[in-house]
Amino acid sequence: VPRDWSTSAELHLEFDACVPGRRASLEKAVRDAIHAGRLVPGSSLPSTRRLAADLGLSRGTVVEAYAQLTSEGYLVGRPGSSTSVAPGAALAQSISLSEPAPSGVESARFDLRPGLLDIGRTFPRREWLRSVRTVLASAPDSSFDYGDPRGRLELRVALARYLGRARGVAASPETIVVCQGFSHGLELAARALLGRGASIAAMEDPCLPAHRMCVKRAGLAVTGMPVEALGADVAALRASGANVAVVTPAHQYPTGVTLAAERRAQLVEWARQTGAVVIEDDYDGEFRYDRQPVGALQGLAPHEVIYIGTTSKTMAPGLRVGWMVVPPNLVQPVIDAMGPQPGGSGPPSLEQLALADFIERGRLDQHLRRLRAAYRRRRDIVLQELADVAPPLRPYGIAAGLHVTFPFTGTPYEEAAVAAAARRNGLRVAFLGSHTHAGASKPGGLVLGFARPTEPQLPEALRLLARAFAESRS
Amino acid sequence: VPRDWSTSAELHLEFDACVPGRRASLEKAVRDAIHAGRLVPGSSLPSTRRLAADLGLSRGTVVEAYAQLTSEGYLVGRPGSSTSVAPGAALAQSISLSEPAPSGVESARFDLRPGLLDIGRTFPRREWLRSVRTVLASAPDSSFDYGDPRGRLELRVALARYLGRARGVAASPETIVVCQGFSHGLELAARALLGRGASIAAMEDPCLPAHRMCVKRAGLAVTGMPVEALGADVAALRASGANVAVVTPAHQYPTGVTLAAERRAQLVEWARQTGAVVIEDDYDGEFRYDRQPVGALQGLAPHEVIYIGTTSKTMAPGLRVGWMVVPPNLVQPVIDAMGPQPGGSGPPSLEQLALADFIERGRLDQHLRRLRAAYRRRRDIVLQELADVAPPLRPYGIAAGLHVTFPFTGTPYEEAAVAAAARRNGLRVAFLGSHTHAGASKPGGLVLGFARPTEPQLPEALRLLARAFAESRS
Repeated sequence: VPRDWSTSAELHLEFDACVPGRRASLEKAVRDAIHAGRLVPGSSLPSTRRLAADLGLSRGTVVEAYAQLTSEGYLVGRPGSSTSVAPGAALAQSISLSEPAPSGVESARFDLRPGLLDIGRTFPRREWLRSVRTVLASAPDSSFDYGDPRGRLELRVALARYLGRARGVAASPETIVVCQGFSHGLELAARALLGRGASIAAMEDPCLPAHRMCVKRAGLAVTGMPVEALGADVAALRASGANVAVVTPAHQYPTGVTLAAERRAQLVEWARQTGAVVIEDDYDGEFRYDRQPVGALQGLAPHEVIYIGTTSKTMAPGLRVGWMVVPPNLVQPVIDAMGPQPGGSGPPSLEQLALADFIERGRLDQHLRRLRAAYRRRRDIVLQELADVAPPLRPYGIAAGLHVTFPFTGTPYEEAAVAAAARRNGLRVAFLGSHTHAGASKPGGLVLGFARPTEPQLPEALRLLARAFAESRS
Repeated sequence: VPRDWSTSAELHLEFDACVPGRRASLEKAVRDAIHAGRLVPGSSLPSTRRLAADLGLSRGTVVEAYAQLTSEGYLVGRPGSSTSVAPGAALAQSISLSEPAPSGVESARFDLRPGLLDIGRTFPRREWLRSVRTVLASAPDSSFDYGDPRGRLELRVALARYLGRARGVAASPETIVVCQGFSHGLELAARALLGRGASIAAMEDPCLPAHRMCVKRAGLAVTGMPVEALGADVAALRASGANVAVVTPAHQYPTGVTLAAERRAQLVEWARQTGAVVIEDDYDGEFRYDRQPVGALQGLAPHEVIYIGTTSKTMAPGLRVGWMVVPPNLVQPVIDAMGPQPGGSGPPSLEQLALADFIERGRLDQHLRRLRAAYRRRRDIVLQELADVAPPLRPYGIAAGLHVTFPFTGTPYEEAAVAAAARRNGLRVAFLGSHTHAGASKPGGLVLGFARPTEPQLPEALRLLARAFAESRS
């Protein structure tokens, strides 16, 4: 709450009671007055003697504050002569913290699209602060310098241990490259493979369009690989002439199927026979509900698979941390794909070190254990609330992950009609049609993300969705 | 200091007295035993009852610890049956925190190359922690989600104010794009301009080779623009047919000259007449010692100039934060150059918000004020310690920045001989020759960075350098 100390005849200053120290309070009050437009460029300030007397401060305090504000560019003037608001300070006046929402974004009551999180639950603020504090107190200065382009060794060690035990990944710190997230890792992998002669990447159909764009942007052509009940069609892959395959074995996005064991073996065999490389997106790998976790494909074939994982779903997208586990002969090409900047293109040191601390203290495991239980409850709510939709919908991919898919095959539902009804009911939803390589196709289906609304909100959001299904047919 | 609690007959566990809580201590002791190879994959653990009795813990504590370690993948087994070390845990054994130094890096007593910092002085750990704590306590959950690809609004507001008053930049939050540093910003700018029809970038000769690589990698051809006493040669630029010019007006890297006022005007006129764009690298803009700060070129021509600045020299390279101020019509092309990933390719939210808080609390200004005084002292030490080198060397670019250039024109010194003598004296140094577009050229010169050694170390490092100059002639 601002406290008004407007005792100076010609200067209205609002002092913020939260700012400790008289000099800092005065500086902030002057800055605020300039930002608010109460003090305009060119206007003179009272002499230090006068302001000190008015405010009951020592003159030295005011002199110091003026000097600081001058060095910051808010004020101009030399000691002894009069001080005024700097011309450049004018720019600050028009700036406010409100900004119009990006165009094309409608407001909706609930967002049931996949890939979104209830960040309040998933970002462990308190424990993250503890890790940051530990790192700032203990990390050597060199940690904040340019470093190994693969990322901080501390994090690569922590990840090697974590990925080995939790995901069955055969990783050593030497072959881990820390990146900014899945898209970044995918682009680095595609660039590295392009440089080694690859030309065509087979990608699952359906898949996330942004991932296809990442691969194309890196310079590879993209061909489709149909996804069936057992996962990606390896026979189609063999016929495609592709020399790279991008797959989501743990929980295919968006269909939700898990790549079957025989398909995994076939995929590895294909890579070995043809010299191709598999890029494994360990999407939802950490969120398995009904069975033992399915280990990463990479564990079967560390020399044929580039494994990519992130914290975007387990903590927060805004962390922008991911990791690649790379066959030894591809480590240098991946580093080269980062470009010429010193220290590579990975995330900031402090974040890497904080994540290393967080993992080594067992906080990631603990956090995932809690999340897994919470998401399992949410999935059960989804199945329960949508069980009575008539005609019924059959859910796919319920064994894992943060989304469930409802294909419309054999039902009277249509994507466009469901989309319109969902919008009328205040929902944002996503469909299979926007994920297929050839564009929207019938019969399509709904891709339902259940991670964004809070758990108490979820039943109501789903009841609105059930209503939208009913309305879509009338 | 580890405390040995090895009371269990078949299990040697070292308990870390720093870990609070009995369960957490037990978990850490088991993890450590696995990492150290004392517990190997497949080996059975004592029953929970037995271990509880041995260690004087409640059985519930041991059951909980086993459950946690099982969920983390260290142990396998079901409640009731025997528990053993998981096969995947084996991978952790071979991992150690020591790694061989990258090849090609020699050890040296002092590093006098430009572009390096005494991080202990430049990274404000305590105040940074304070900003992180504030952000984690107060930022809304949405801050950690995907966001505006230009970066967090809070940071763009803080930067617009700061750049306006401190650097004379005409910036509004709408036209600022937060990036990962100068190289990243340069690549984004070059890609955006390529997409708008640009083909040739004129870059200063000499300049940093990595920057030329960034521009080429983005798809532009590079041509040279000689640097003279008044700065980049605009007449040569006009003749080159370039449609992009990359300049370091505040303190040219590596020659140290400041772009003269008339050259600035000519550069802007060239851009306006030809529809070209100037990319301004505000290298060392914050470090001006002898005169009033020279404002950014961008302030003269906000519609013709892309301005790029970073915290890599003012705080730490490991922060990986930079910013671009972009002409309004280029904002969308720059965003598009970031690629298809949601939220763009800027740094993590937490870091952006922490930097916003740091700037708004006036900590960046205060920090820069301290650094400026410290670097000015260092520069004076350089001039003093090298004043007696005979035959004498004339320093260039001493009014600003973290490096001084000593051209060898009119002197008997040669780069190769000085390099060899410096190496013998335990110094790492850099030369003009490695910055010219055509490769090493005579007579060359020394580019002396004085920011890496600590201030107390600097005189000795410079005395060794003076000796190297003398030795290079014998």
